Amino acid sequence: MLKTAEHLYLQVADKLEQLIEKEVLKIGDKLPSVRVLSKEQGISMSTAFQAYYHLESKGLIAPRPKSGYYVQFNSRRLPQMPQACTPVKKASDVSVGDMMFEIFGDMKASDVLRFSIAAPAEGLLPDARLSKALTQALRTTSGHGVHYDSVQGNELFRRQIARMSIHWGGALSEDDVVTTHGCMDALKLCLGATTQPGDTIALESPAYCGALQLAHHMGLKVLEVPTSPVTGVDLDYLEKAIPRFKIKACLFVTNFNNPLGSCMPDRNKKQLVDILEKFDIPLIEDDIYGDMYFGKERPLLCKTFDKTGNVLLCNSISKSLAPGYRAGWCIPGKYKEKVLRLKQFQTIACTSLTHAAVGLFLENGRYEHHLRTMRKMLHTQCLRYQQAIADYFPEDTCVTRPQGGFVLWIELDKRINTYELFQQAMRKKISIAPGRIFTLQDRYHNCLRISYGTPWSKQVDDAFRTLGKLIRNMY
Amino acid sequence: MLKTAEHLYLQVADKLEQLIEKEVLKIGDKLPSVRVLSKEQGISMSTAFQAYYHLESKGLIAPRPKSGYYVQFNSRRLPQMPQACTPVKKASDVSVGDMMFEIFGDMKASDVLRFSIAAPAEGLLPDARLSKALTQALRTTSGHGVHYDSVQGNELFRRQIARMSIHWGGALSEDDVVTTHGCMDALKLCLGATTQPGDTIALESPAYCGALQLAHHMGLKVLEVPTSPVTGVDLDYLEKAIPRFKIKACLFVTNFNNPLGSCMPDRNKKQLVDILEKFDIPLIEDDIYGDMYFGKERPLLCKTFDKTGNVLLCNSISKSLAPGYRAGWCIPGKYKEKVLRLKQFQTIACTSLTHAAVGLFLENGRYEHHLRTMRKMLHTQCLRYQQAIADYFPEDTCVTRPQGGFVLWIELDKRINTYELFQQAMRKKISIAPGRIFTLQDRYHNCLRISYGTPWSKQVDDAFRTLGKLIRNMY
Repeated sequence: MLKTAEHLYLQVADKLEQLIEKEVLKIGDKLPSVRVLSKEQGISMSTAFQAYYHLESKGLIAPRPKSGYYVQFNSRRLPQMPQACTPVKKASDVSVGDMMFEIFGDMKASDVLRFSIAAPAEGLLPDARLSKALTQALRTTSGHGVHYDSVQGNELFRRQIARMSIHWGGALSEDDVVTTHGCMDALKLCLGATTQPGDTIALESPAYCGALQLAHHMGLKVLEVPTSPVTGVDLDYLEKAIPRFKIKACLFVTNFNNPLGSCMPDRNKKQLVDILEKFDIPLIEDDIYGDMYFGKERPLLCKTFDKTGNVLLCNSISKSLAPGYRAGWCIPGKYKEKVLRLKQFQTIACTSLTHAAVGLFLENGRYEHHLRTMRKMLHTQCLRYQQAIADYFPEDTCVTRPQGGFVLWIELDKRINTYELFQQAMRKKISIAPGRIFTLQDRYHNCLRISYGTPWSKQVDDAFRTLGKLIRNMY
Repeated sequence: MLKTAEHLYLQVADKLEQLIEKEVLKIGDKLPSVRVLSKEQGISMSTAFQAYYHLESKGLIAPRPKSGYYVQFNSRRLPQMPQACTPVKKASDVSVGDMMFEIFGDMKASDVLRFSIAAPAEGLLPDARLSKALTQALRTTSGHGVHYDSVQGNELFRRQIARMSIHWGGALSEDDVVTTHGCMDALKLCLGATTQPGDTIALESPAYCGALQLAHHMGLKVLEVPTSPVTGVDLDYLEKAIPRFKIKACLFVTNFNNPLGSCMPDRNKKQLVDILEKFDIPLIEDDIYGDMYFGKERPLLCKTFDKTGNVLLCNSISKSLAPGYRAGWCIPGKYKEKVLRLKQFQTIACTSLTHAAVGLFLENGRYEHHLRTMRKMLHTQCLRYQQAIADYFPEDTCVTRPQGGFVLWIELDKRINTYELFQQAMRKKISIAPGRIFTLQDRYHNCLRISYGTPWSKQVDDAFRTLGKLIRNMY
């Protein structure tokens, strides 16, 4: 019963949202009263209220005292989207991470508003329920978890990963999965298994700053592939670049990538798999944001279309459950033996207890419930943050429209240097991620990444107002 | 009172041990009766009994029914020591780890007697007391440990590491320490901070197989330095080799190294620090076995003599407390910033809960107590294992006399191939580590490493008898 009622209010809210999106209902328009809505839609008053609360929580409508609900937001009215970057002339050696060290050096300082970190804020994670799973793991693991786990990793955890693969069209067994200390560790193992120092790999542009630094420290060169904020990597460019730059592996975040938030359409994913198959080049696919979709269905993966084991899928629960548990994995396809060896010689084994706990947590089905709540919150926060940028930032600001994930990519006037903006904002206890760290080229100085992992609040609103002022003062 | 009594029986036992060692008391000699010993030494009967029990537990003496105690073992009568290897002509690229993968691939299979793993057997670790610390960590860590720890690592854990440095003459603060996922992770970070792919580093010969594979996967070349089973690395050779082979860093296990068990004398440690200082080459010092000394005092470290931060000390509690907790650290001296950056870009942070638990465990002083028990057990097991080799292996067998650590290095007749021996032994459910994996050169085929981490038992005795037979059959 509850289930049906829940669906009902969402159905009504969705219809209204579409009307707002299509500007049938324009900003400032008054919505039908709760009584009228209830009659028109044949639903109870309380369901009608729920539908309005839902739209209000998304920031789309707002009540006015003694008057009713009004449309207050339409994503069509948002700032323009940024364009995909132009290609570069040559692959470049990766350079320093001084800036990154300054920005991410102390992730624990608590008095700073961290728009810079693409992770959920404290309070969004089910820490109490996870603790129960950990206590259970402590009780049920042999030797209370003091001993080495197997090199491949905790079996229950791996089985749950395999089971969840059904959501993206996979049909895996636990034997296909290798556990890691988070997604970064998985990327490192997969890069190690597919490349040699001196090789060139392809990444998105802009790309995840951690991946760029990792590649640097592994002695790899990086070709930055032009990437659309909507559809992801430019496949035509990539296909020509592979032989020209002697690309040895690709590392792409195909769903809601970081920092652009683009989601590669299914047909592009299939095409990408075919291209790399043709050149016999492995794809390392990082899906760390794939579960954080705002739409009705989880997007597929390149791994969904992979028939030969050429795709190495990397992931973790660090964005959705517990970064501190360091529980990630890879599904390395035909590179499994290589990955296992690297893991044996670099990590030996993963932390027994926290991996066992995540296995237990996933097994009891609480994860899906938690993800549903989290997706809703992130979608709401994404819209609110976009709105704040429209409200407070200069008019020529461009901002992405991610359909999932954690981050917005913002392009400011060419004159603005966002590293300076970062330094000024830090004095106001606001941390942002300047665009320069998402490339090895001399570009994106006027861009920044904002994470909407922190729930909307007066403090967040004030921070946007402050950022807007700082930017205007820099003109 | 208990303390004094404990000292008393140990004092008497030590005196007797010396008499056995000097062959004043020879194998087969009858020892004084408990009554006579008690009178002669002015101790109680029960203390006299304790002294004999202690010597019996070490395998030095044995009771005969209705007759009393007899000397049954003298380490002078053990097989000869192996020699240090001769130098090689050139530094070599590191080659495959197929053998290692076969040997260490599945560390969890429970029906195999694992002489191959240099770690304590199940049952030697204080798992129940550690679980209490973990439960406490779960209760006291903010967010129950779901959040990222700081990049540098858990503060309490680091403070305890700093506090323990007094045992080897260090005077550190928590700010000098960076936590890692075990010692291997520490080695990887320190190698990463001091070398580039293509560089040559110096290791012992034979060397820890994991370090060789790690170097290989990091694109490093390795010079294997002749190493004495007693005093460690040949410093004269090293000093000449550094300019000749353009060595960029040294990675040595100075105390009870693996597999030789040698312990570098203090004056050599100081000399090594001076040599590397002169050439401005960093020393990565792996001290994972340093706490497992059999003598009266903990050996010092090269780090003890390091005044400029040129020594990067690596360690973990994986050999002494809980391999499955993945709790290690490094004290990287002047390379701290570099190590922190690498950690940030490769690991991000360590597992919050298990590191917090180890911090709590170390804080409450249980660690020293546990180590005392463990050292005594290991010493006893070491002597028992040596004796078994003397009893069952061919007469021309050479075996090391470690004064700490976990392993014996055994040199057999040149005709014996210990990889074949491994394969034959595995059919009998006995796992050994063939010598070939401890080098990148084509050598040590006739050597093997035996870990005495498993407490002595009828099963262990039978396994040695079986190994002895297999070896004789291979002649």
